[in-house]
Amino acid sequence: MYDFTASPLVRNDKTLVLAHDHGLEHGPKQFGGVEERLDPREVFEMATHDAVTALAVGKGLAETYYPSYEDDVNLLAKLNGSSDLWMGDPYSPQNWSVEYAAELGADAIGYTIYPGVNRETDMFEDFRPVQEAARDHDLPIAMWSYPRGQAVKSHRSESIIAYAARLGLELGADFTKVKYPRSKDAMAHAVRAAADNRVLLSGGSKTSDREFLELVADCMDVGVSGLAVGRNVWQREDPEAILDKLEPVVFEEAPARDVLEG
Amino acid sequence: MYDFTASPLVRNDKTLVLAHDHGLEHGPKQFGGVEERLDPREVFEMATHDAVTALAVGKGLAETYYPSYEDDVNLLAKLNGSSDLWMGDPYSPQNWSVEYAAELGADAIGYTIYPGVNRETDMFEDFRPVQEAARDHDLPIAMWSYPRGQAVKSHRSESIIAYAARLGLELGADFTKVKYPRSKDAMAHAVRAAADNRVLLSGGSKTSDREFLELVADCMDVGVSGLAVGRNVWQREDPEAILDKLEPVVFEEAPARDVLEG
Amino acid sequence: MYDFTASPLVRNDKTLVLAHDHGLEHGPKQFGGVEERLDPREVFEMATHDAVTALAVGKGLAETYYPSYEDDVNLLAKLNGSSDLWMGDPYSPQNWSVEYAAELGADAIGYTIYPGVNRETDMFEDFRPVQEAARDHDLPIAMWSYPRGQAVKSHRSESIIAYAARLGLELGADFTKVKYPRSKDAMAHAVRAAADNRVLLSGGSKTSDREFLELVADCMDVGVSGLAVGRNVWQREDPEAILDKLEPVVFEEAPARDVLEG
Amino acid sequence: MYDFTASPLVRNDKTLVLAHDHGLEHGPKQFGGVEERLDPREVFEMATHDAVTALAVGKGLAETYYPSYEDDVNLLAKLNGSSDLWMGDPYSPQNWSVEYAAELGADAIGYTIYPGVNRETDMFEDFRPVQEAARDHDLPIAMWSYPRGQAVKSHRSESIIAYAARLGLELGADFTKVKYPRSKDAMAHAVRAAADNRVLLSGGSKTSDREFLELVADCMDVGVSGLAVGRNVWQREDPEAILDKLEPVVFEEAPARDVLEG
Amino acid sequence: MYDFTASPLVRNDKTLVLAHDHGLEHGPKQFGGVEERLDPREVFEMATHDAVTALAVGKGLAETYYPSYEDDVNLLAKLNGSSDLWMGDPYSPQNWSVEYAAELGADAIGYTIYPGVNRETDMFEDFRPVQEAARDHDLPIAMWSYPRGQAVKSHRSESIIAYAARLGLELGADFTKVKYPRSKDAMAHAVRAAADNRVLLSGGSKTSDREFLELVADCMDVGVSGLAVGRNVWQREDPEAILDKLEPVVFEEAPARDVLEG
Repeated sequence: MYDFTASPLVRNDKTLVLAHDHGLEHGPKQFGGVEERLDPREVFEMATHDAVTALAVGKGLAETYYPSYEDDVNLLAKLNGSSDLWMGDPYSPQNWSVEYAAELGADAIGYTIYPGVNRETDMFEDFRPVQEAARDHDLPIAMWSYPRGQAVKSHRSESIIAYAARLGLELGADFTKVKYPRSKDAMAHAVRAAADNRVLLSGGSKTSDREFLELVADCMDVGVSGLAVGRNVWQREDPEAILDKLEPVVFEEAPARDVLEG
Repeated sequence: MYDFTASPLVRNDKTLVLAHDHGLEHGPKQFGGVEERLDPREVFEMATHDAVTALAVGKGLAETYYPSYEDDVNLLAKLNGSSDLWMGDPYSPQNWSVEYAAELGADAIGYTIYPGVNRETDMFEDFRPVQEAARDHDLPIAMWSYPRGQAVKSHRSESIIAYAARLGLELGADFTKVKYPRSKDAMAHAVRAAADNRVLLSGGSKTSDREFLELVADCMDVGVSGLAVGRNVWQREDPEAILDKLEPVVFEEAPARDVLEG
Repeated sequence: MYDFTASPLVRNDKTLVLAHDHGLEHGPKQFGGVEERLDPREVFEMATHDAVTALAVGKGLAETYYPSYEDDVNLLAKLNGSSDLWMGDPYSPQNWSVEYAAELGADAIGYTIYPGVNRETDMFEDFRPVQEAARDHDLPIAMWSYPRGQAVKSHRSESIIAYAARLGLELGADFTKVKYPRSKDAMAHAVRAAADNRVLLSGGSKTSDREFLELVADCMDVGVSGLAVGRNVWQREDPEAILDKLEPVVFEEAPARDVLEG
Repeated sequence: MYDFTASPLVRNDKTLVLAHDHGLEHGPKQFGGVEERLDPREVFEMATHDAVTALAVGKGLAETYYPSYEDDVNLLAKLNGSSDLWMGDPYSPQNWSVEYAAELGADAIGYTIYPGVNRETDMFEDFRPVQEAARDHDLPIAMWSYPRGQAVKSHRSESIIAYAARLGLELGADFTKVKYPRSKDAMAHAVRAAADNRVLLSGGSKTSDREFLELVADCMDVGVSGLAVGRNVWQREDPEAILDKLEPVVFEEAPARDVLEG
Repeated sequence: MYDFTASPLVRNDKTLVLAHDHGLEHGPKQFGGVEERLDPREVFEMATHDAVTALAVGKGLAETYYPSYEDDVNLLAKLNGSSDLWMGDPYSPQNWSVEYAAELGADAIGYTIYPGVNRETDMFEDFRPVQEAARDHDLPIAMWSYPRGQAVKSHRSESIIAYAARLGLELGADFTKVKYPRSKDAMAHAVRAAADNRVLLSGGSKTSDREFLELVADCMDVGVSGLAVGRNVWQREDPEAILDKLEPVVFEEAPARDVLEG
């Protein structure tokens, strides 16, 4: 397990990852309405906000823009991903080696696993050397844990999300990003299932400030370690405003109500 | 073959492995009724009991908790496993390298093989470098040998369990964990088929104290070298009590009756 | 990202690649009417024209002819390709290693990706070590980005070409070669989607001088970084004449009209 | 080609391999009637008989028992094999590396190939590095050459066995073990097809002394270099007796009649 | 490209390869009528004829017989091949590494490619490291280029053979062996398509002296660099006689008529 004592990825032991792998995973259509965000500099700028403890991007964005931001942004190197043009069995190929991520100055690595899919066994095998290379480079590991496949009737059910969270612990991640399992109690169960692993809430698609902040506050309340959020921040007209509001909720245990009214 | 003369894994030449890979293989649903065991510290604590000569866990649990227990627990690194969300042909992908297991202080390695499944040939090929790397690191090898597949009409029949035990010997394991083949005579056959390989009884699901201890005593009586037990210990309300009773049966040839009455 | 400041591949920050992988990808039938071009020397000679900043060829042509042209031609090593006799799922196998390309004096490497095909995940995985080895050898990378497959209803639609261009940025190319998305506005969108990645227009099949030069001028006008052209140059009776006309359009922002009338 | 001049594997330029991979390939059911042979020591003891120039066993048996017999037995390391629980296309996965076989003191390596099966091309590719590593370690190579598959109507026909023998020569074995092609003339043809490669008769299942010795004598008569025999020796009540009789037939050109009457 | 200036493989810049991979590719049935040729020494002897500039054989024959002929024969190491018992999609697995071929004293390497088959992409990928290793060892490369598969309606049509020849150039061979495309003009087209690559005529099955020599003379006349011939030489009763006649046709531009009448 990674020692987070002196890590820039946590603040009061909490974490907020701004995730921006949408250009690869979904393409320019995700940028409808916020075309200016096609310029990754806009997103790197957001990541300089004090509330953001890490920015998750793929190799190409990191190579191109991170050199200008390495003093102000912590890089979470997202190592795998596919386009959404692809119609095959869910799988996420590795696009970036741990070695090269470390060379570019990454502070952490991120990797997607789809438990339950036909190629689960391939994904577990792919993850093994990635996880071990990250340990060699003393980099913490965030797993995007998204169960899918024939046995997964409801991918946000309490038992599935608790299993998703546990798999992060079992396979050797430090953080496990899971979707919200529809209730605070279910999220509490996932946190218990993950034991000493840090559960991150997956930020999901754009919602109202109130909805989003209450969700985050509920999660923090039951022991979630923070969130990894993409569209719900960078698709907004004013990302800075939502980051200002998230900051006390994530790092200072502020109730959503105070922040919304504040 | 490993030289067990000075090995901490055996005591009076017998072995008791506490196995806890259920978080990976089955997920949180296995913890129903004993939710507190979701905290792996509870299970590591159990493994400090004198009756336990090794604790079998996967990479994530070992990384996170073993550093606090390395003086009191012998680590059997379980190197492969899949989730039970997965619906494909039985197969168990490798999640942990021998090298990294050795680095974390493992005292032995464990590996599951499913003889007879469609991917048997892949599993045999996967096992080869694992087995040979374990020899290089002077680590004994335990094989979980669980025949399945089209030719396996009854996976607990005498001939299947004897074959399962023999495969551990043939492929280069030191211990072979097999299921109980429904009779003491059949287990004796498996022990003969394994020759100098050490057969471990697979502990199975939770049963009554009497049933469990009599089963173990029967197996010890026909030459089994011990057991590898999970749920039948950690799912109990009082795991320490059952470990107290197992200790004389496994290590001192005590009859089950004496222990139960004692 | 590659630093193009002192690179011979750009001139006024623009690029013109003469591509000649047709002998591999399509075979001698492409040479109908211009049989003398079966002699690669003819094409290497064309590449000595001042308008050409790089010649893209495969390993065999490079090995055989580049030693005679290395002072006058910049080599873009095209590393993958298949024959058009092949009827399988679209895929482009690697025929040339980065190491050997560098040894032969390559100034850049080129690689084809087909996003959306059944083997997309294989192609992404193949590209990873190629891209990283190119960085190790300080060679810029051009991606031929041609979406295909079940989800690609129209492979020249605005959204598909914008996604194609973005994938070059995301996966770590320096140049991304895309087809023309049927309108200047759509090409402008692709350029925005690619952000700091350099978009190259795919030259396509032979058209009239007017049609071709107007197309190129339109593209340059919306921020395209140049073109990669094959048949539209070498299949002409007078390739030098069209290169003379392309030169001011690509490198000096000349309107097509001036060049055509000039 | 291996230089057999000073090799302990041959005696008067002839060879008798005692093969004992049945525990892996067929399991304990093969030991019905001779249950005591489940103890590999029994078979290692047989291999100390002067008639046996090598004992063929897999990794597990070699690791466990060979250290006690290395002065009295020559080890032929059988590197691949599968269980007969497996119902897939014929294929034999590698369970043992040449390097580790050499380390354990192997005097030769053995490898099964099934020409004609759906995975023939995989088996040929698997065999390449094995064969070349054996040369690096100066170990002679025995190929078990057993044609199977759609094109093999009759797997003991003259043409199939001659082809099987030839493949040993072509692919780089020193010995090729083939089944008996039903006539002495057909075996003579196989020997000619193998040219300088040494053909070994596959001993087959248990037969009468007369039948077995006459078969062996016929084969020796037409130039076969010896035999590799398993069940036909170790399944007998008195293996030593049959080895006593085989010795003059294999090594001294004795007619079967003399031995049987003797 | 290999520098043939001082190469023993060419004589007056022409080449005659005696190919003998039939034992692997077709088995003993090819030796019907010339059973004595089952002894590879007979074929190695033929290869000492002055007309033969290289002998193409696989690993096993080279290991066994080449040490006795290395002063008199140039070895073309044929690295891949399968048996004709195999009914799968056309593919040719690698049986011999370039490194080991070089160690055995090979003067050139040979590799079969089937453009157009379902596994074309595998074959192209297999060929890459082989070709590059041959360059490292300064060994010239001969490609057996035999298009097959769904798109190949007629595998000897002019366009297919021209494409076959071109692929040798494109993929980095020095020689490309193709079948005769049914007319002298079509062969001339293939030679032009191959540009500086050396086209070798595939000798085909046994024909009359006249037919064979006229075919060869026609090919030499349009720029073919020689031939690679197997059965059409070694299946004859008097191979030396046909080699005597081929010598002036291949190396001295003699018309077939002169040789036949002479």
